[in-house]
Amino acid sequence: MSASLELVEVSPRDGLQNERAILPTADKVELIARAVAAGARRIEVASFVNPARVPQMADAEAVIAALPRRADTIFIGLALNARGVLRALDTAIDEIGLVCVASDTFGARNQKQSSDQSVDMACESIRLAREAGRRVQVTIAVAFGCPFEGAVDPARVVAIARRLAAAGPREIAVADTIGVARPDEVARLVRLVREAVAPLPVRVHLHDTRGMGVANGLAAIEAGARTVDAAIGGTGGCPFAPGAAGNTATEAMAYALPEAFGLDLPRLVETARWLDARLGRTPTSAVARSLG
Amino acid sequence: MSASLELVEVSPRDGLQNERAILPTADKVELIARAVAAGARRIEVASFVNPARVPQMADAEAVIAALPRRADTIFIGLALNARGVLRALDTAIDEIGLVCVASDTFGARNQKQSSDQSVDMACESIRLAREAGRRVQVTIAVAFGCPFEGAVDPARVVAIARRLAAAGPREIAVADTIGVARPDEVARLVRLVREAVAPLPVRVHLHDTRGMGVANGLAAIEAGARTVDAAIGGTGGCPFAPGAAGNTATEAMAYALPEAFGLDLPRLVETARWLDARLGRTPTSAVARSLG
Repeated sequence: MSASLELVEVSPRDGLQNERAILPTADKVELIARAVAAGARRIEVASFVNPARVPQMADAEAVIAALPRRADTIFIGLALNARGVLRALDTAIDEIGLVCVASDTFGARNQKQSSDQSVDMACESIRLAREAGRRVQVTIAVAFGCPFEGAVDPARVVAIARRLAAAGPREIAVADTIGVARPDEVARLVRLVREAVAPLPVRVHLHDTRGMGVANGLAAIEAGARTVDAAIGGTGGCPFAPGAAGNTATEAMAYALPEAFGLDLPRLVETARWLDARLGRTPTSAVARSLG
Repeated sequence: MSASLELVEVSPRDGLQNERAILPTADKVELIARAVAAGARRIEVASFVNPARVPQMADAEAVIAALPRRADTIFIGLALNARGVLRALDTAIDEIGLVCVASDTFGARNQKQSSDQSVDMACESIRLAREAGRRVQVTIAVAFGCPFEGAVDPARVVAIARRLAAAGPREIAVADTIGVARPDEVARLVRLVREAVAPLPVRVHLHDTRGMGVANGLAAIEAGARTVDAAIGGTGGCPFAPGAAGNTATEAMAYALPEAFGLDLPRLVETARWLDARLGRTPTSAVARSLG
């Protein structure tokens, strides 16, 4: 099992996006370089969104221009629409990540779109990126629960995954954006989506809001997910649960599965502490606190 | 699976024992009554140890005299030696829990005993309690890792479990006293100990120091453990990792397996917040923080 697993380091993008403090470009580049030094080989580094809405990501192009390039490392930039994809294509980003939502209310509040509209837009963006010859994958957000609608029907997520798969991404992810999923729910949805989109690989994006991040990640892997997202320090918070932990901490996944991801635990812990200090953030990562 | 699982609520004993603030007897009794109201049916309520060494437990007899008695609820008192068992036998406590250690250095520092001596004493105490007709079980502490010696050899723990089983306890537990275990290690040790002591049931006592509590609990259950210890609020701290979480939070296990333990999640969360306030403790339970 171990050799085929992968962890996507999302601290530079999802980790920072929900933190209050704006990190200077140089610090973002240092965070990415530290992640690479700790063994990360696939890293979400920026998002091509409206800088007026997401000031933390206003320097996307500058971060990408300064990336510590390596032949074995893939850098991901996020886009929500064709405009974002076009911006991404103007950079040297290796992979474009797209996002659609499984809940109409979440979509309406977050991006003024229904779930269906967000899937249409993601499919169009996937095709745009593919035509340009760029690696592209897609994430289904709020795939387990929505802060406004509650539980999300797995059948709905499976139907979305099928539509996305037809557009030809390299990978499909299901995201527990607000950290409400239970391990059995994660295992079930991963199995259903895998069956629906095989042979496409399935990634999971899990938040630790209720302390289920590690258990959910292990359940996803057990159910056949090949790749898990995680963020150094458990950064990312949750706009719907102030003060809560954010993404599952990279160092927690590395602790739970020490052989699986090729990561250097002491370096991750050191970087988590560095990042918390840079952000003026109260540490939420149990591994970083207890091993630091 | 669900129907056969059990959670032992340990906040009134292990949860409080490593917290700085001394809770008055009336508050301990209220905590126990709240746990019962939330569905707990097996609760560790006191330990019969030297009050000079553990002031938090000095009122063991008073707590037991004031317990909210129910025919379907078992209250456990902890003892470390024959003197503790004799004190326990003088009370109406339903079950006596004994403890031995898997590490010589931990034993020497904690109770001035080698591991072997602690096992001998536990066996003697088990026989004493049995002869008195009292329910009795035993826990192997630092069964995964020792703060002084590092990793503990599973073969050593299995050998201890066999010796303990011969003394006739109702149940044997393995404890990750300092919260260093990984899910695969928990699953492995539970399997080995089960094979060694069958048909005796195996319980696990897991700490959340490194955020592995839920994942480890699920791994233990998957490996055949019937019972898990947990503490409301994740109380219990860790003397070897200041500021760290303590026991796995009861509300986290109840969130992960909502049908398994017959527990009322909102009542657990409310009690976690009440207990943290009573102890003047910074909340460490993600479930209590995000659902409260």
